[in-house]
Amino acid sequence: MENHRTEITNNITQSIRNFLSDKKYSKIAVICDENTEEHCLPIVLDALPEHYLLRIISGEENKHLGTCEQLWMALTEAGFDRKGLVINLGGGVIGDMGGFVASTYKRGLHFLNIPTTLLSQVDASVGGKLGIDFNGFKNHIGLFAEPQNVLIDTCFYATLPKKELRSGFAEVIKHGLIYDQSYWEKIKTVELENVVWSELVTRSIEIKKEVVIADPFESGLRKILNFGHTIGHAVESYFLDKGEQRLLHGEAIAVGMICEAYLSQKYTGLKTEELDDIVSFLINVYEPVGIDKSLFDEIVGLTLQDKKNEGEAIQFSLLKGIGECKVNIPISAPDMLDSLFYFNKLVS
Amino acid sequence: MENHRTEITNNITQSIRNFLSDKKYSKIAVICDENTEEHCLPIVLDALPEHYLLRIISGEENKHLGTCEQLWMALTEAGFDRKGLVINLGGGVIGDMGGFVASTYKRGLHFLNIPTTLLSQVDASVGGKLGIDFNGFKNHIGLFAEPQNVLIDTCFYATLPKKELRSGFAEVIKHGLIYDQSYWEKIKTVELENVVWSELVTRSIEIKKEVVIADPFESGLRKILNFGHTIGHAVESYFLDKGEQRLLHGEAIAVGMICEAYLSQKYTGLKTEELDDIVSFLINVYEPVGIDKSLFDEIVGLTLQDKKNEGEAIQFSLLKGIGECKVNIPISAPDMLDSLFYFNKLVS
Repeated sequence: MENHRTEITNNITQSIRNFLSDKKYSKIAVICDENTEEHCLPIVLDALPEHYLLRIISGEENKHLGTCEQLWMALTEAGFDRKGLVINLGGGVIGDMGGFVASTYKRGLHFLNIPTTLLSQVDASVGGKLGIDFNGFKNHIGLFAEPQNVLIDTCFYATLPKKELRSGFAEVIKHGLIYDQSYWEKIKTVELENVVWSELVTRSIEIKKEVVIADPFESGLRKILNFGHTIGHAVESYFLDKGEQRLLHGEAIAVGMICEAYLSQKYTGLKTEELDDIVSFLINVYEPVGIDKSLFDEIVGLTLQDKKNEGEAIQFSLLKGIGECKVNIPISAPDMLDSLFYFNKLVS
Repeated sequence: MENHRTEITNNITQSIRNFLSDKKYSKIAVICDENTEEHCLPIVLDALPEHYLLRIISGEENKHLGTCEQLWMALTEAGFDRKGLVINLGGGVIGDMGGFVASTYKRGLHFLNIPTTLLSQVDASVGGKLGIDFNGFKNHIGLFAEPQNVLIDTCFYATLPKKELRSGFAEVIKHGLIYDQSYWEKIKTVELENVVWSELVTRSIEIKKEVVIADPFESGLRKILNFGHTIGHAVESYFLDKGEQRLLHGEAIAVGMICEAYLSQKYTGLKTEELDDIVSFLINVYEPVGIDKSLFDEIVGLTLQDKKNEGEAIQFSLLKGIGECKVNIPISAPDMLDSLFYFNKLVS
């Protein structure tokens, strides 16, 4: 694992120029989707030398091998050799998939990530996890590889729908809950309409880096980042192809954090008042709706395919208290069902 | 890049048992094709604990994403988690593709390689190059990742067709030509029907390791391994879908070595008598037939897609003399055509 180069900037064009100034790439490709082409590309265009624009269609449902094949083909047709550079301009889907495509084209091109959403800046931008979905399983095919650099500028949020900002905010909340109680206290005062994002982004990236550097391949500590994600991913997967019911990543993780905070209170010492504090904040921000209980079994079944599991037991990362997280807590299917019932009761 | 663990053994079952003895894998999959299932699996079966057998159809023409999807699906359906092990039992196709599938399933399973052909033992077994073909381009999609271990036993050759042994022998010849003149002198005395393979395999793997360890990501020295492969790969690619005309890897590389030895004499100081020495040995062993000159342009065009090229110039690895190789020699299309005419004249 190489070092984690993340630059938080308030002048993205200058940062791109600096990055490119001492490098000699044979060709440059910029991967974007229809949203980042419209809203983000114009912001950075001045700083980009001659390049190939590779467009994909936005959305997690396009994060699959078929899209990778199109991107590999586009690089091939443009005659990219191993000295080419791929710039990923977009959210998590573009970062994860563009990085995977770059890392596997001719056994690896350099890539530069310019994450344009809060979620991708605080989550996918650090840690080298790349991948695509496969047969409905999230990030089922992928690898660990680091971009040459990650350039972070909150200026891109100006055109981001509020729902998307709120989705990314779930990861910020998680960072406070698993690692830093005083950060959590600060987060609780945030109003999404009126916040200096660069401060939160800076602290969230600091936390993520500390965790990832300590455990790059997720053999121990890094698993704390999975808090809320075991049930959250299953909920997200379940609703992936359910049209309007579909949840954004952070919305699903908010549900997951409520369920897993409940399990934390049951098994790992989270205090009842801490649980109430977490849950009331999450419900206030996300206003989640109940999940039909006829779906519970299928959602619990989906957790079995989670990459974090080893063997038959389902391993959770749960809170000992706010700001502290324990990993490898085995949780049974009945307990998971129980936590979903708890969630439903809360929001009904 | 991790260290290069290759064990040359004359007791493959014991070596497998030793490898597994101190490890706890949640599940084991063995990838084989119809040939290795028939001829090689029985040899190792005693040493294998309970496992899933994943069968693919033999042949380079099946080394593509479609087969990877089948393998990823089989691992998914068998419920493999990150603590699973994939054992690749077969030649280069299984090693390259099985390693790629393992390294990208849930961002990376351990894999153990048991190469069963001379070619895969002396070539693909060292260096961590994994990959699959894509739209007719060889190893176009892939990555660098090391198996946990490589177990080498020449006992598997007993059932190998002579043509396959001869194909692998091309890489042995290359090792002498690029790195070790005294090894070349020894190689020239080899009769394919009557040779102690373990000695040659041991020296060839030593050479490959020395080169790869000095330059794991192919930024310099490692490129010497490409001698014979720029034109050789293009010839192999061209004939890939040409039915009976199709060439085995080593047969194509023998053609490539003849052409590139010619270019070495022209540009990098290979002596005329060395050229004659190389060419007469290769013709004697491989008995190549001429290539219709109407195909030359297309073959030269295929070298442009080679991963080893940077920008527009075609970079060759050519011999300064027997046992010594220079890298990054730019060669023009007319020179490549010239070398193909030379080859044709020799064998007509």
